[in-house]
Order: sequence, then structure tokens, then C-alpha cells
Amino acid sequence: MFKPHKLAIIGLGHVGSAVLARAIACQLAADIACIDIKPEVAHGEALDAVHSLSCSYVPGIHVHSGGFEECRDADVIICDAGPSILPGQKMDRLTLAKENIAVIREVMKNVTQYTREAVFIMITNPLDITTYVAATEFDYPAGRLFGTGTTLETMRLKSIIGRHYHVDAADVQGYMLGEHGNSAFPAWSTVNIGGVPLDSLDEFYDHEKALDRQEIAQEVVNTAYDVLQSKGWTNTGIAMGACRLAKAVLFDEHAVLPVSMPFTGEYGLKDVALSLPSIIGKNGVEKRIPLHLPADELEMMKKSAESVKSVMRANQVID
Amino acid sequence: MFKPHKLAIIGLGHVGSAVLARAIACQLAADIACIDIKPEVAHGEALDAVHSLSCSYVPGIHVHSGGFEECRDADVIICDAGPSILPGQKMDRLTLAKENIAVIREVMKNVTQYTREAVFIMITNPLDITTYVAATEFDYPAGRLFGTGTTLETMRLKSIIGRHYHVDAADVQGYMLGEHGNSAFPAWSTVNIGGVPLDSLDEFYDHEKALDRQEIAQEVVNTAYDVLQSKGWTNTGIAMGACRLAKAVLFDEHAVLPVSMPFTGEYGLKDVALSLPSIIGKNGVEKRIPLHLPADELEMMKKSAESVKSVMRANQVID
Amino acid sequence: MFKPHKLAIIGLGHVGSAVLARAIACQLAADIACIDIKPEVAHGEALDAVHSLSCSYVPGIHVHSGGFEECRDADVIICDAGPSILPGQKMDRLTLAKENIAVIREVMKNVTQYTREAVFIMITNPLDITTYVAATEFDYPAGRLFGTGTTLETMRLKSIIGRHYHVDAADVQGYMLGEHGNSAFPAWSTVNIGGVPLDSLDEFYDHEKALDRQEIAQEVVNTAYDVLQSKGWTNTGIAMGACRLAKAVLFDEHAVLPVSMPFTGEYGLKDVALSLPSIIGKNGVEKRIPLHLPADELEMMKKSAESVKSVMRANQVID
Amino acid sequence: MFKPHKLAIIGLGHVGSAVLARAIACQLAADIACIDIKPEVAHGEALDAVHSLSCSYVPGIHVHSGGFEECRDADVIICDAGPSILPGQKMDRLTLAKENIAVIREVMKNVTQYTREAVFIMITNPLDITTYVAATEFDYPAGRLFGTGTTLETMRLKSIIGRHYHVDAADVQGYMLGEHGNSAFPAWSTVNIGGVPLDSLDEFYDHEKALDRQEIAQEVVNTAYDVLQSKGWTNTGIAMGACRLAKAVLFDEHAVLPVSMPFTGEYGLKDVALSLPSIIGKNGVEKRIPLHLPADELEMMKKSAESVKSVMRANQVID
Repeated sequence: MFKPHKLAIIGLGHVGSAVLARAIACQLAADIACIDIKPEVAHGEALDAVHSLSCSYVPGIHVHSGGFEECRDADVIICDAGPSILPGQKMDRLTLAKENIAVIREVMKNVTQYTREAVFIMITNPLDITTYVAATEFDYPAGRLFGTGTTLETMRLKSIIGRHYHVDAADVQGYMLGEHGNSAFPAWSTVNIGGVPLDSLDEFYDHEKALDRQEIAQEVVNTAYDVLQSKGWTNTGIAMGACRLAKAVLFDEHAVLPVSMPFTGEYGLKDVALSLPSIIGKNGVEKRIPLHLPADELEMMKKSAESVKSVMRANQVID
Repeated sequence: MFKPHKLAIIGLGHVGSAVLARAIACQLAADIACIDIKPEVAHGEALDAVHSLSCSYVPGIHVHSGGFEECRDADVIICDAGPSILPGQKMDRLTLAKENIAVIREVMKNVTQYTREAVFIMITNPLDITTYVAATEFDYPAGRLFGTGTTLETMRLKSIIGRHYHVDAADVQGYMLGEHGNSAFPAWSTVNIGGVPLDSLDEFYDHEKALDRQEIAQEVVNTAYDVLQSKGWTNTGIAMGACRLAKAVLFDEHAVLPVSMPFTGEYGLKDVALSLPSIIGKNGVEKRIPLHLPADELEMMKKSAESVKSVMRANQVID
Repeated sequence: MFKPHKLAIIGLGHVGSAVLARAIACQLAADIACIDIKPEVAHGEALDAVHSLSCSYVPGIHVHSGGFEECRDADVIICDAGPSILPGQKMDRLTLAKENIAVIREVMKNVTQYTREAVFIMITNPLDITTYVAATEFDYPAGRLFGTGTTLETMRLKSIIGRHYHVDAADVQGYMLGEHGNSAFPAWSTVNIGGVPLDSLDEFYDHEKALDRQEIAQEVVNTAYDVLQSKGWTNTGIAMGACRLAKAVLFDEHAVLPVSMPFTGEYGLKDVALSLPSIIGKNGVEKRIPLHLPADELEMMKKSAESVKSVMRANQVID
Repeated sequence: MFKPHKLAIIGLGHVGSAVLARAIACQLAADIACIDIKPEVAHGEALDAVHSLSCSYVPGIHVHSGGFEECRDADVIICDAGPSILPGQKMDRLTLAKENIAVIREVMKNVTQYTREAVFIMITNPLDITTYVAATEFDYPAGRLFGTGTTLETMRLKSIIGRHYHVDAADVQGYMLGEHGNSAFPAWSTVNIGGVPLDSLDEFYDHEKALDRQEIAQEVVNTAYDVLQSKGWTNTGIAMGACRLAKAVLFDEHAVLPVSMPFTGEYGLKDVALSLPSIIGKNGVEKRIPLHLPADELEMMKKSAESVKSVMRANQVID
């Protein structure tokens, strides 16, 4: 018999509640379960969302709180459990590693009691490390669990370049790759707008000053901290990114988006999860697209890997 | 020449940021300006939202922060400026009155420097008092400024009755009227589901126990505190309510929704703003619908009026 | 493993192609199969729709044509197979009966080779007769197959009353019941706007002339012919109605909508399918709501039954 | 005072009615006027659409029929007036030229009586010729009137390449340029998927056979005839394309889409309208992007120009 789609959100803090709002807006699933280590927070967020749904324009989605048993029949799980960086703390996602590795192991122990069938989308930072731990230590089928990765940085890159050239961000092509965090880098070789390659952008599009690649690369990474310092957390952008990925799964879209999962030799790298353009469908990551990168971008990918690995080693995740 | 629609959001705290997220989801306007007494908060919320927009499925809305001059060409203004009740504080919206009357007078002084043309939707609590102050002291055209009022309580009433009878909340008809807050009351005379009047609901719809009107009325009011205590604030429901109203304005829908504006003799009442079903269109409140209320509901309306007025008097808003 | 939702549309004429367009707009399913007795028509409609989907704003829905085997894993089937009334033909849906009874028996024979699991929504006219035949002759589980019924007439009633009182049609409450066709009648006892009962509508809402029930009842039925004569067919309204019902199924909404299925003693009637408000969820019709009707409406329901039965008898569907 | 957005649709045949359905689905405007040389067809389509709108999920859009005076306060006009090619007729849009030049001159005479302010989107075929006539003979401000051009061919190119490589069509980058019709050509220099350039597509993406550029180019053009022969007309794809463009205007998106307007020396060409990537905003075409084309594509652009010009000359549109 027909089963309506079900989404489970693990972690209902600032990010999780933004995921919930966006999931409802995207009509991701008929049934949305909210799971949090603080059950009253999950209860409160679900209840507030329920009130919003009696308003017309929105289909009658079932939002409720519950425990990990809600994962049993979930089709997609989005996880942002664990604390985040706070304004004023040292500005590196990697500092969160120790605490959130423990959180994610606990989450995965609980989830895998009930399912390894759901497509699992990780948001918790440091993203590439939590993704690696969750993907490798719990027999989760390869590809069915992945991290949002540089999807968010890619969205930011497009915004920033779009604003620079007075063009809609959705028309900017190109990817941020590598780590979700400080060592993420623009794959400039993939950037173009409306069929115009990178080197000709200044010729065709309006701009106040010439494109400075270093500056843009830095702004993409810094804009996370700008948002964090300004409002106290980041949530709107990443919530959209996660729901965009979930939609690609639920519609079996075969969309190409840069997500994080353990490398298996791409660019000679393994024992680390990083972001690459990937085909996202009903099975999660259907295929990885290890682009041919020019030497400088390849170098940055390797630096990203080393940066992530050093933190994993410090936490005994890898040798 | 054609002017894309513009929305200004005043106050980017928990409610304002939820309004922003929902406004984007509803595609309310091509241009959304975020205004806050803390400019960095408005900046951070706008920036986070901008990042979310480069994702496909969403049109290229222009979100940015700015000062009150952004109201000059706004078509709709949604205002939730001012502090909110916090968990643990005395549980009455009216206690906020003194502080937020001052906030709203400051906001209106600023807004009316630039416009009295925009439809102005008030969210700031105590809602009926801020609405009264804003509507009566600044020469804003009658009806063009109104408060969300019992739109939210009505959404909650529908949710609660819908859950009780295992029916989609959108199919529950009926209104909460009076004050937005503790003295709001269900106009039971307006309640029905799918053409079945109140007295026959138990006969036709599944339920675990018979309908207890007192209990439901209490639950509608208490659910606000349940959300508040559980998650620390309420925002999702009210954000949807405000955006639902804005959509009715922008599409000139002539939708019937219960909003707050100063009474002009309805039920013999004046010098107070309270909620009645109202026709919402491009001019704001196009018409009030002062339903014939049975004696007990009329009594509750009068109590609501007295409750609000006593706080207004204590604050010298009325004599 | 997770299965994306699948919709099958049987019959890709004017109505089916409008269903397809609306199903895509509503994002009803990730997979939409188009089935037609003329495979090239199904092919053409699917191909045209596919082209529309590469445009941004729309998720990557899979639209394709195929045979009845596509029903095997469908979650919802919408069927409008068979010819329609043409302008200039005798103006009664019942005249179509003979031909479309044969069409529907053929369709059901084919469908039930592959599934009795999908929720089946009938559109083919004469609706109540095709619904009766399909629901009773093929062992389809009760409630899992139903007809759009007076959902469309109800939408028209709301439009007409809304226009009369200058109020958004979505705020008009009330149902058309009985036959989908000439003997459909407004259940005036269920009509109200914004909590204002029928008798007070003229008092509260703007109008050019007093409400004339007879005239409105007639206009609802005639408007079908007005559309038919004007544009040559009707499709937009019914397509929305069918997709609204499908959405209620896919989201397990428990929405209350007036659909047609065989009566089992309601109002003392059986051996006929007619429309009643019904709770629509993942199983199709979850519950019927046989409202208490006043004597005159009860009388019209019985006339509707007799009108439909006489055609069924003439076609040997019932004795 | 605030004015809700208004769309006028001129021509309510197969294409216009699909535009209407899609415009409602996209919530393009609060007010939609339907104008047709056969007023009863406009009336029927508007009425059918109105019925669909009382269904929940959809805001209360005002759809109605009217004369050209409805253009007076329209923000956007979409025009598909005039006959189309029928199956079995000679398979070239240019054969329609004579008849539709006359139709469009009549339409423009009528429209410009009331406005030159609205952004005007042409669909009528032969598109580049009607666009040229409308843009040059009626003092319409440059850029404010343009044709959908190769937007549709581009959508088809993306669909076909996406299907070839089992990737979501929205992730295929690239443009069809030149004439809307038989001489349209893929600008292969602009094609890539997920950052992978054309030459490496076979290496990274699944496919059943190697990419054959000639074959794909031919299929894009032929698919129009496939749809036409199969279902009798084409409308779904072009309706989405036109509404996508209208949305870019109404949200001032600065989206890059390939539309047709008179050349003013691009590639040494003038006295002809053809499609180039263009920035679409509230003023219509905000900027043209005359990509650097490789020699073979430049050659095809010139052939396209000559092909269109020869028909214009034959009809005395140009000398």
C-alpha cells in the first residue's frame, strides 16, 4: 500500500527549525518528525509549525515530535544535531570536532537501530568529519549517507559573483569544492555565466571593479562568519541547501550538487570525506563526478584533505 | 513604469526572521528590505537569506538590509519590532505594553516620515494596543494599518479542533475573536466542519472524547505558552499568519480573516482595537464583518475590550 | 527502499493534459506516466511537458508515456478516458453513458491486471455511473476508488457566491451535492461566508442584488455549459479538482471534499454512486459524512439518485 | 497607491490557455486579463480558470476576459495571437509569416493605443519576424518588447542532453541560438554539465552511446514537430518558457535567457531579430550578451539571419 513520504529532522536548534520551515515550504513530505535531545524543544517547534499549517495555501502536512523510533519508516533524515560555533568562539568549524564526533556516534547508534534504508543528509559540523564517521562506522550503505558539504559555499559563491556582475545568482555556474569550511575553494575552472567563460565575464557583464579571484574566494569563506557575527548563527542558507538535496532525492532528480562523502581514491585521496559534484537521486549519491582539476585547484583539494585529516587524526577517527 | 512589489520587515528577531523565511517561500515580493534597530542583525538575516536564494526552485528575490527610508516605496510593511515575552516572565502579553508602546511610537514616527501608502501589518505585542496606538496617533489612513490579531489564535483553534476530530485543520471553520492574548475567545457560533454544525460534530467525526468547549478555548490560549516554554519563543505560526495577510493584500484577495483595528462602535465598543472577521484586500481592511454574536460571546467580546482598555488606560493611551 | 511517488494519468485529451499540467504545478509526484488509447497523443503530451521541466523553479519530475503496465507501481491513478460532450450535442452528461461504460470497463480490466493498490480518481463522465461501474464490478477495495463528483460544482458554487458578495471564493463555505451533472444541488444548509450564515449574507457583504437561491443553483449547473460552448470543452477547473483530491491522498490530509462513491444506505439510498462530503486520506475515502439534510435538500438528493439510476437501468448496470 | 500586478494574455488558443494555466500556477499576477479575437473563447477560458481558483492552495487570482483596453494598466503582456502550424501543413514556421505579420500589426495597433509601458513578450510565430515587426514599427521602447526566441529550444536541448546522460535537465548548461525554428543551432561552446565541459561528458556521465552533436541538434529542432504531429499542437513547453520570462521581469531577476529582439550590429548583423543570451529584468531585456562564438557557430548565426531575412523581404518587412 501507498506510503506518504516521511522526513525526520534530528536536532531542532536554529538550523533544524529553519530546515523544518523550509521543508514545509517545499512540501518535502506528508509526515515530518522532529527529534531532539531536548524533547520539549522538538515539541515546541513541531507545535508552532502545526499552527502555521491551518492557514490556506499549504497542504495538510503532519508535523510532530518523537524519538528515534520515528526513523523506522522515514524516507529521508536530515541531521543537524550537536552544538554549533558561537560568535566570539575561535572561528573554525574543526574546533567543534571532538564534541560532535561523540554526538554523531550517539545519533547513528540510535538511527541504525531502526533503519539503514533512509537517505541520510548530514549538516552537523565539522561536516566532513561527522560525515566520515557516520558513513564509515555504522555499515550505512555507501552513498545513502552524505553531507551537505560545499553546497552552501557554492550557493554563496553564486550569490557573490551574481551580485558582482548584477546577474541572477541562479545563472552563475560553478562550484566550491573541498572541505565545508575554511579550506573550501572555488573551482574557477567550472565558473561561467550565461555561457560566458570566466575570463570574459568582465567584458560582458556590468561590474564596479574587475574580478579578483582571491578576494571572492575569501569572501565566500568569510561570509559564513559575517552571518554568524551579525545574527548569532547561520541557518537560512544551509536549511535551503539541505532541503534542496532532499528534494533531489525525493524526486529522484539526478541533480548535480557538490556533497561530501568519503573519497575512494579520487585525486589519489582516501580516508577523508570531501565535496565533489555528485549526482543526487533516490539512492542518495548515485555517482561522483571527479572533475579534471587544473594543478592549482588539485593542490587546494589536497590541502583541504590534509586539513580535515589532521583533525580526524587528532581525534583518533583515522590513524 | 512597472514597479516590482516591495516588502519591508521591521524587526528581525525570532519573529521577523521567520517572517522573512516565509515571505520568500510565499514569493511575497521581488524586493524585501530588512530593518532593525540593530543594523547588524538585519544585515546578517538578509545575507543568510540571500545565500539561500541561489538555489534553484526559488525566483531571484532581492533581500537586503536598510534604514526606514526603505519604507518609502514599500507596498507592504510587516512590523514585529520590540522585545517579546520570555519564558519565565509573567505570562501575559499585556505586561509588555509600556515598553512596546514606546517602541511602536518610535517606529511609526520613522515610517510616516516616508510613507502612509503602504499597507502596514502589525505583529508587535500587546498587539491590540500597539495597533491602536499606531492606527490612531499618526494619521495613517483607516484600515491601511491593522494587526494580525486573532488570525493566529484562529489558526490554533483550527489545528486543535482538526486534531480532535482527525480532520485537516484547513477544513475546520470558525474564528477566535477579541483580544490577541489571554481574553481571546472562540466564537463557537461560527464553528463547523465540512458543513456539519458544532452540535453534530461528535456524531459525524471520529474522536477520542466528546468536545469540551471550555477545554478547547483554554488550550488555544495556553498553546501559545506551551510553544513559548518549549522552544523559548513563538514565531512559525505568527509568521505564516502575517504572510497570509500580506498575500491577501498583494493579490487583492478579499479574503476574510480576523484582524485587529480600532472599533468604531461595533457591539457598542470604541476606543479599543480588537479582532473581527474582516475583508482583506489591496487597501488593507476593506470591510469589517461584525457578526451577530450570541449573548455569551458578546459578553466575552466586552470583557476582552475591558481587559485591553485597562492596560491602555494604565499607560495613558486612552483616558 | 524508498519509492518516489508515482501518478498515472489515463486519457490525455483536453482534461488529461490539463491534469498533467496541474499535477506538475502541484508537484504531485516524482514520476508521471501518461496512458492513452492513442499512444502518440500520450507521447506528445509527455514530451511537451518534459520540455517545460528543464526550466528552473520546477523540480525534475519524470514525465513519460506508457501502457497500462505503468499502473503496477502507481500510487494514484487519475482517469478521464473516453469521449466528452461536444458543443452542440444534447446537453446532458448522461447521454454519454453507454459509450463510456464500455470505455471504463475496458480501462478497469486493464488496470486491475496490474493493481488494486493505487488510489483511483475517476473523472470520466457520466461520473457517477462510471464510478459505480468501476467501484462495484472489479473488486476494487471500497473507498480506494472514487469520482471527483461535485467537487467541481462546489468549486463553481464558491466562485459564483464569492463573486456575488465580492469575497474570495476560498472563504465561501458550502457544498454542491448529489449527481455530478444536471441534478446537482446546493446544500444551502451548509453555506456561509466568514462565519456569517446564509440568511445574513445580504446584511454583511456587498452585493448588487439580493441572493436568489434558484438563480445561483441554476448558474452553477449552467456554467459548465457556458464554458463548454465558449471554449469547446471544460478542463481547467476539473483538472484542479482532481489534483486537489490527489494531493489530499498523497499528503494523507483528511481533507473534507464532496466526492462520489456507491451509497450503502445513506439517506435510504443504495445501488447508486453520488457525492457527499467525505474525508480524503491516503486510503482514498476514509469516511463519508452523510450530513443531516433538511427535507427539501433530501428530496433533491433522492431525485439525483433516481436520475442517475434511470440511466444505469437503461444500460443494464443495475436492475 | 499600491497596484497589484496585472498580466494580459492576448490569444487564448492552445498556447494562450496553457500560458494562463501556468501563469496561475506560478502566481504571476493578482489580475489576469484574457483577450481574444473570439471574445467567447477568452470568456470560456477565464471562466474555467476562475472555477479552478476556489480550490485551496492557490491565492485568489482575478481572472477575467476583456478587450484591448485591459492592456492600459498591465505590467506584462504575453501575446500568442494568430493561427499556428497544423499537423500535415508544410513544416516550417516561416510559412505562417504573411498571415501573422498582419495579425501582429493589428494587435500592436490596438495595444499601443493603451500602453507602451508594459513589458511585452511575443510568442506568435514566426517568432523572430513578428518580434521584429512589433519592436520596430510601433515606437515600443527598445528591449521592452521581445520574443521568447530560443528559450524553448534551449529547454529542449537541456532535456535531450539531460536524458542522454541521465542527469537532471536543469543541470545542463548551454544555449540554442539564432532563429526560433528550423535554423536554430546549439552553441556547443556554451554546453557543459556540472562543471564538466562538452568534450569530457562521455567520460563522466552514464550514456548509452557517444554524443553525436549533429544528431542532437537535429533532434532539438525535430522534437517540435514530434510534439506537433503527436498531439496536434505544442503548448506546454512554450507556456512555461513565456511564464519563466515573465517571472524574471516581475521579480527583476536579471536572469540570463536567450530571447529574440532586433540585432543592432551584433556579429555584424542588423535588420533582423534573433536570439542571444540576454539579461531579463523589470525593463524587459536589460542587456544583450553577444557571446564570442567560434567560427562554425558564427556561420550558423549568419545563416539563421539570412533565413529569417529572406522571409521578411518576401513580405516587404525589410527591403
